[in-house]
Formats: sequence, structure tokens, C-alpha cells
Amino acid sequence: MDVQSLLNLTEKTLDEVMPRADERPSVLHEAMRYAVGTGGKRIRPLVCLASAVAVGGRAEDARYPAAAIELLHNYTLVHDDLPSMDNDTERRGKPSVWAKFGEANATLAGDALQALAFWAAAKAPRNAGEIVAALGKAGVGVVRGQVEDVAASGERGTDDVDFIYTHKTADLFIAAATMGGYAGGGSEADVVALGKFALNLGLAFQYEDDLLDGDSPFPKEKTEALVREATGAAIAALASLPGDTSFLKSLAERLVGRKS
Amino acid sequence: MDVQSLLNLTEKTLDEVMPRADERPSVLHEAMRYAVGTGGKRIRPLVCLASAVAVGGRAEDARYPAAAIELLHNYTLVHDDLPSMDNDTERRGKPSVWAKFGEANATLAGDALQALAFWAAAKAPRNAGEIVAALGKAGVGVVRGQVEDVAASGERGTDDVDFIYTHKTADLFIAAATMGGYAGGGSEADVVALGKFALNLGLAFQYEDDLLDGDSPFPKEKTEALVREATGAAIAALASLPGDTSFLKSLAERLVGRKS
Repeated sequence: MDVQSLLNLTEKTLDEVMPRADERPSVLHEAMRYAVGTGGKRIRPLVCLASAVAVGGRAEDARYPAAAIELLHNYTLVHDDLPSMDNDTERRGKPSVWAKFGEANATLAGDALQALAFWAAAKAPRNAGEIVAALGKAGVGVVRGQVEDVAASGERGTDDVDFIYTHKTADLFIAAATMGGYAGGGSEADVVALGKFALNLGLAFQYEDDLLDGDSPFPKEKTEALVREATGAAIAALASLPGDTSFLKSLAERLVGRKS
Repeated sequence: MDVQSLLNLTEKTLDEVMPRADERPSVLHEAMRYAVGTGGKRIRPLVCLASAVAVGGRAEDARYPAAAIELLHNYTLVHDDLPSMDNDTERRGKPSVWAKFGEANATLAGDALQALAFWAAAKAPRNAGEIVAALGKAGVGVVRGQVEDVAASGERGTDDVDFIYTHKTADLFIAAATMGGYAGGGSEADVVALGKFALNLGLAFQYEDDLLDGDSPFPKEKTEALVREATGAAIAALASLPGDTSFLKSLAERLVGRKS
């Protein structure tokens, strides 16, 4: 299992579930495809696919949940960029969805991407109920984190940071991993272990993001220690899993000290 | 099975799945509860619960899908009212969600209601995958209808009206009925018949709405004929169902000539 084949599986599945731009209304479908793009890092789908393998299943079993988590993630970016939220006109060096397609179309494209995410998740060949419940929990959680992020834009205590990072960032990683575990046929204990892995991976990812942005709520040394601690906890959580966890482990290791 | 007990089941289930207003962030949860309200007509949940009965199942089996369709419907209203869309400051005689809680919170409350809808739908005791797929299809469809509605606000051909009414209105009725059919343990043929019923019910509902608003795209007589035709087609579609269809039939009949 190499990264490139997992990325190919992700792109193929995303393309399969997304509506064609020549279907009516084309502006909606163009905006949806623009939002999801192609060739991104696709970290959450990789976590999802590798989690199916980590419980002894096949990456292929998790391809619809993997597409689903990327669709959900991208809808949140579309809405976060809106004028009433972060008012960002650029994303990944290109015009944001609302800057290109207008505010109403961006709101609606985000809405449709979220619905499509759940539709895709339900196509998982087993445990569809558990998989959709995990995605739904994350879908609510990510909004809870965003509301607190917008509200607590001034002074932040450690509690605020914990709440925002857990929900705004880690909840999607948790959904990615647990959906992958369910899709791969893992036990409840496997899914719990994957949730613990993903919570810590998500926190490490967010702390590392803060370091890259030079915008951490804590002093640099403390944030670096938090990255190491969370990465260690993530890797430790993999010990009980019955399948090949090498990809999840290397993913966690690569997040430490990444450059973008 | 009387209407009041079905309405009680709907309200109880909505209250059960909605986050408490004292959970963090309370502004989000207040906005979500404000959006969904209490004691509305709850037509879509009634269709869902009665569809479970119409295939020979119990209304209780469909209570989570019934709550789900109401949550999804209400999120669409919250987003439709936004300044970038219809810019409505009132809804049901009260301030719209964005007028009361601000634009960012309204966008986010709508987003969370959509996620919660899918989370609730996945709690159905059987056929969760089919149920969520039906809701997901409607979730994308309703946005397709809304995009065309915003785009085709001037001259509209019959094709435009068909597309908008089918997707913006009927898709949610179709999801309500087919989810109820799956939750009640209906056969594929039962679910197809329920879909046909609900498409026509949704169209009749929308034409009747146009008559009540005095805002039909067609002459009054033609719209009245369309209501009768769609109502008849809806009722005819119930013939093959194995359970008690009397409630669905009376629901269709009551839509004709309703006063609000």
C-alpha cells in the first residue's frame, strides 16, 4: 500500500460521487467541483483508508467514507471563507468559492457538499449506520468548534483552545479514522483505539499548523512539546490494532516538522 | 393512529436529538432550537411516520428519520432567509434566525442542523444505509432546486417550474416517504410506490402554496387543475401498499383547499 495508490483511490471516488458540471444547475456543480479541487494533500481520506487497513480490512472498503470526509472538510472551508465568517477572498492561492461564484452560490455549494458527503458515506459496504453516525457527530462538532473560534477571537484560555482544536480540527480526524475502522470491519475496541489515535493526530496537526503560521496561542516551546506529546499518544494508541498500522504511524511522524 | 400522537412522537424525538441550549456553545444550540421551533405543521415528519405504517410497519420505527427530515427542512429555511439569498427578516411571524442571531451564527446553525439530520437518520433501527442515501439525495436535490429558483427569478418556462418544484419541494417529501418505507421494513416495490405518492404530494403542496400566495406561474384554473391531478396521482400510487394507507390518503386530501 503506497500513498500514491491511496491518493488515486481518493480522487477516483471523489470524481465518481460528484455531480457532473454539465448537469443542471451547472453553476452549482462547477462550484462544488471547484471547492473540492484535485490533487490536494487529502490527509483525512488517507487516515480513513489507512484505518481500514489498520483493523485488517482493505483500503477499498473505506473509499466512500474517505471521499465523504473530504467532501465534509471542503464544505466547511467554503463556508468558513464567506464574507459573514472569515471573509477570505483566497484559498490555496486561488479565489475562494464565494469570490468566484458569489455568496449565495457558495453557501449553497457548501450545503450540497455536506449532503453529498453523507450520501457518499452511506455507500460503505458494511456498517453504514455507524459510519454515518460518526460523520454526523463530526459534522455537528466541527460547527461547535467554529462557533467558539469566531466567538473567542480575543483572549483564549487553555480550555477554549482545547475545545476549539478538539472540535474544529480533531473531530474530522476522529470521523475519518473511526469510519475507516467500521468500513474495514474492525471491532468496537479497534474503533475506540482509532478514535484515540485520531484525536491526538488532529491536535498535533493543529499545533503544527500554529507553528507554521507563527500564530500559536502558547509559547513556541510549549507548542512544540504539545506536538511531540500528541504525536506520541497517537502512535501509542495504534499498538492494539490487528492490521498493518505502518501507514498511520508514518503519517503521524510526517506531520511533525512538516513544511506546509 | 391519530395525528396528535404522531405529532407528539415527532416533537419528542426532535427534542431528544437536538443539543441542549446549556451545552457549549449555547448560542449555536439556542439558534438551532429556535430554527426548529415547536408545534409547527410537521407535514414531512407526518408523511414519514405514516409511510412506515403504510408498508405494514410501526410509526415508532420511523421516528428518527421523521425528525431527520424536519431538521433538514428547517436548515434549508434558515439558509434561504440569509441576506445573500432571500434576505428575509421574518419567518412564521418571528425574526428569522439570522435577524435574531446574526448572519454567521445562522449559517452555522443551518450547517449543524443538516449534520444533525443525518446523524438522526442513521439511528433508524433498520436499513440505515438506504435511509441516509435517500436523505442525502434529497439534501443535494433541494439545493439544486434552490439554485435554479434563485437563477430563474424572472421568466420561467414549464420546464423550469417542473425542475424547481420537483427538487426544491418534492424531493423532501420523497425522502420523507421513502425513509419511512425503509424504516417500516417495506419492499423495494413499496418504496417505489411511496416515492411516486410523495412526488405528486409535493407538487400538489407547492401548487396549492402558489394559489394561497396568489403567486402561481400558471393561470389560476390551470394551477387548480394541476393540484387535482397531482393529488389524484398521489392517492392512486397508494393502492399497492400492504399496510394502512388511510392516513397518507387523508393527508393528501387535506392539502387540497387548505387555508395556510
